[in-house]
Amino acid sequence: MSTNGNQKDWHRRSADTADRLAAAAQFIGDGKQFKSEDAVALLEAVIRPGDRVNIEGNNQKQADFLAESLNKCDTSKINNLHMVQSAVPLAVHLDLFETGIAKKLDFAFGGPQAGRVAKFIQEGKLELGAIHTYLELFSRYFMDLTPKVSLICAYKADRKGNLYTGFNTEDTPTIVEATKFSQGIVIAQVNEIVDELPRVDIPADWVDAVCQSPKPFFLEPLFTRDPALITESQILLAMLCLKGIYAEYEVKRLNHGIGFLTSAIELMLPTYGEELGLKGKICTHMALNPHPTMIPAIVEGWVEQIHCFGGELGMDKFVNAYPDVFFVGPDGTLRSNRAFTQAAGHYANDMFIGGTLQIDKYGNSSTATASRVAGFGGAPNMGCDPHGRRHSTEAWLKCGAEQPTLDRQLGTMPRGKKLVVQGVETFGEGRAPVFVEELDAWKLAKNANLPLPPVMIYGDDLTHIVTEEGIAYLNRCPDMEARMAAIRAVAGYTEIGMQAKPEETKRLREMNIVKTPEDLGVDRKRADRSMLAAKSIQDLVTWSGGLYNPPARFRNW
Amino acid sequence: MSTNGNQKDWHRRSADTADRLAAAAQFIGDGKQFKSEDAVALLEAVIRPGDRVNIEGNNQKQADFLAESLNKCDTSKINNLHMVQSAVPLAVHLDLFETGIAKKLDFAFGGPQAGRVAKFIQEGKLELGAIHTYLELFSRYFMDLTPKVSLICAYKADRKGNLYTGFNTEDTPTIVEATKFSQGIVIAQVNEIVDELPRVDIPADWVDAVCQSPKPFFLEPLFTRDPALITESQILLAMLCLKGIYAEYEVKRLNHGIGFLTSAIELMLPTYGEELGLKGKICTHMALNPHPTMIPAIVEGWVEQIHCFGGELGMDKFVNAYPDVFFVGPDGTLRSNRAFTQAAGHYANDMFIGGTLQIDKYGNSSTATASRVAGFGGAPNMGCDPHGRRHSTEAWLKCGAEQPTLDRQLGTMPRGKKLVVQGVETFGEGRAPVFVEELDAWKLAKNANLPLPPVMIYGDDLTHIVTEEGIAYLNRCPDMEARMAAIRAVAGYTEIGMQAKPEETKRLREMNIVKTPEDLGVDRKRADRSMLAAKSIQDLVTWSGGLYNPPARFRNW
Repeated sequence: MSTNGNQKDWHRRSADTADRLAAAAQFIGDGKQFKSEDAVALLEAVIRPGDRVNIEGNNQKQADFLAESLNKCDTSKINNLHMVQSAVPLAVHLDLFETGIAKKLDFAFGGPQAGRVAKFIQEGKLELGAIHTYLELFSRYFMDLTPKVSLICAYKADRKGNLYTGFNTEDTPTIVEATKFSQGIVIAQVNEIVDELPRVDIPADWVDAVCQSPKPFFLEPLFTRDPALITESQILLAMLCLKGIYAEYEVKRLNHGIGFLTSAIELMLPTYGEELGLKGKICTHMALNPHPTMIPAIVEGWVEQIHCFGGELGMDKFVNAYPDVFFVGPDGTLRSNRAFTQAAGHYANDMFIGGTLQIDKYGNSSTATASRVAGFGGAPNMGCDPHGRRHSTEAWLKCGAEQPTLDRQLGTMPRGKKLVVQGVETFGEGRAPVFVEELDAWKLAKNANLPLPPVMIYGDDLTHIVTEEGIAYLNRCPDMEARMAAIRAVAGYTEIGMQAKPEETKRLREMNIVKTPEDLGVDRKRADRSMLAAKSIQDLVTWSGGLYNPPARFRNW
Repeated sequence: MSTNGNQKDWHRRSADTADRLAAAAQFIGDGKQFKSEDAVALLEAVIRPGDRVNIEGNNQKQADFLAESLNKCDTSKINNLHMVQSAVPLAVHLDLFETGIAKKLDFAFGGPQAGRVAKFIQEGKLELGAIHTYLELFSRYFMDLTPKVSLICAYKADRKGNLYTGFNTEDTPTIVEATKFSQGIVIAQVNEIVDELPRVDIPADWVDAVCQSPKPFFLEPLFTRDPALITESQILLAMLCLKGIYAEYEVKRLNHGIGFLTSAIELMLPTYGEELGLKGKICTHMALNPHPTMIPAIVEGWVEQIHCFGGELGMDKFVNAYPDVFFVGPDGTLRSNRAFTQAAGHYANDMFIGGTLQIDKYGNSSTATASRVAGFGGAPNMGCDPHGRRHSTEAWLKCGAEQPTLDRQLGTMPRGKKLVVQGVETFGEGRAPVFVEELDAWKLAKNANLPLPPVMIYGDDLTHIVTEEGIAYLNRCPDMEARMAAIRAVAGYTEIGMQAKPEETKRLREMNIVKTPEDLGVDRKRADRSMLAAKSIQDLVTWSGGLYNPPARFRNW
């Protein structure tokens, strides 16, 4: 028998961290503060080649100053980093791969850099680990992708190094916990250093160094949709969704993604939703960013509670005025937290509704194309059926009970099912067909040397497709052939849709597997902008009683 | 158009909380402290009938003093509470339902109170919401089961109300975040109030009142298994698992549950695992409590990293001596965190292995019986295939690629699959057959008026069953008939097993769907206690170099 591992050193991580912090000590003063002009030198002291590094940044807030400082580091000192982080939406995130400071990427969302990610993969500048969904990536921070150094951002620090992340708390607690408690190093940029914080979001113990950045961190208003841009086609889809799905299943607990369809739905709760008598019956609890297009429904009392992944630029005063709806701290400001909202979106939601770029003939969908690695954000996590769920709700039971095929999986055992809905126009961005024989994700898998095509939502999780042709109730299909026929039936004039056979579609309509607007009693003529409770950003400001403060680019008055 | 909801009061939650705290102010002094003798009066001031209340407590630590104080409250002041909490293992948790202080329960784990939960349901004293898995329940804290008042526990508070939860941080951060940021009330019991904390785990801002409890909080050594009690039958199962599953799939990232089988596996890594040449190839990353039976494998350098749900009594010094393996803070002590380990166990694990009381002929399993509502803990969350997962590992890809039926779900699209393994002796506790025609969960559903039978792991998530008869590779079955035959083939002399047909089993063996010990080259004669790296608790203490300090009831020297 061996005894105790004293023969081996089990403190290598902490010793390594102590070494690095000793090298950085010359730059770090009272209250863990360092000067912004020392940022490059400090990073060169604490980061080593090949390290796993996280630069905080998601849809909304970005540790942009620290990212830029990292990019200015001497590539002979820092290179071949393995970036493990939620998103790479800033140019500088990809510049790191151009210079060779970074080599490998594990992430969840690419946004505007999607094209460069694909290009760098092809050029061999970037080795792609995997495209995750956020909660999956966070999970790996505690398993096999633990960051050694994390560069984070906050609104304020006090003179001891405590942080206030407030409205945009987002990913910070998760990143910091994984890094600091694995004896890694946490460096923060803040907009302001103050004597007293509104509240403590991150204790000073969890942070190694803090600097006031030369300018406030970048915030992207990613969930702001201008009602003026909502089309009549989107309004028709929203009517179909509300009548054929929200009302049909009485969906109370759900997430709305990014996109104009769900914005239209939000703006039609106080109009079409009211007309259908749905107030109190749907959309009472949500996992949601503070969407400006939710303002009318919130003001009208539709929603009991919303937990937020992140903040949304200009929405802080409105949110803080509705603490019965939003999660706010004792200081009266929002505490968002992406990890918990994603967990709620996974396990406590009855429905996920979103869009996609492509759906194949089996119902698998993806936003990844051969030339763009966009990432999936929260969609795979919320848009899948969580088999670990054990509590029942009406919507979940009904969706599950409608499945004729469950006996092939579970014998006589019943189970509910989450509603996973994709609402798309049959021809999407740039008039490209959404319904395709084969996803472009196959090409990306080949180009990026991935073991599997990156699918956003798998066909067996998808329960409903809504297009201008109607709704395909995929959960009601007895087999793959019926499923493929139902998809064809709503695929319009795409190549897939042209393969639909009229008598087959007729039979599916009789079986309530496909419903056209007419079947649902939705009058296409009524699908116009009078359905929207707010028709412009300015209307939203009015609804908010002046509390919503839209970013400049959304103002035209 | 309406404007801003000033006509309605959107600050009812915070106003209500302020009212309650004003009534409690007389008991709360400097640093948010109250005296333990005022606990009952304080709870009577801050809790109202029908409130959703959380009493912290999980497998390990318990806010027992606050639970007992709540039970002493005047039932005319506090009654019909809706308890939303991880576990109800203490007698006092059920006493609350006896007295009428509590009425409804949403929970995840019953433990020793499982029988009383079932009895109270039948007597109408307890209305059961649902039996959750932990992460699912946590998710609902942020959606529709947000606690109004939470009673939590910590090791230490400082004079400002900051808390140190250290080794047993467990559920505290999740409960506190959900409660405090919905403007609810957080009351803490601590073992000690000190001038300076080792580190801050919960900022004082997040806590309303703190008291030093008359005695330290109760800790249950739930994951301590005495090697002396491991049987030869369990050792045989462990050999089958190591050779037929761990080695076969090279499972690196996994969870081990409670139970003697996994303890045997842990103790056989340095023996049989070493013999099979598996060091570095399996069990390198784990989501795990600090199991004492992991000591030899850790000391021998098998494991790179472990993230812990909670602590384990007596393991603190050992854990703190291995900070390269465990997540510890700058103060050198563990930070456990159940929410993140469960997330990792869901999304970042390649395998879950556990046991159960019953498996039906389709492969659905449960620990719920008509007379015991035991709960499932983390099993449903970790023992299900997470369809939101998008990263690949060898084990996950191999398990997925072996499925002959995936085309019925996804067409031509490939997908990996998590290994979900149940290791059971065909006759379990009290010689009751594990394999049954129908789960007792059906009776419980009827008794407790539940919409679905409470299943721990659904058949379509289960990939492997290991018994003394061999391994059924369910993921390789082409259809339900083959799956049922494979289950019969390993079900021994149970009623289900007696239905196995020899030529059917022979065909399944030829197809590598069933493997006997002989097929796997596992010599039954070698299944004896010499396989265990440690044969007693005392051996574990020796392996730990004296760092492991077992609870008194596990000491016999």
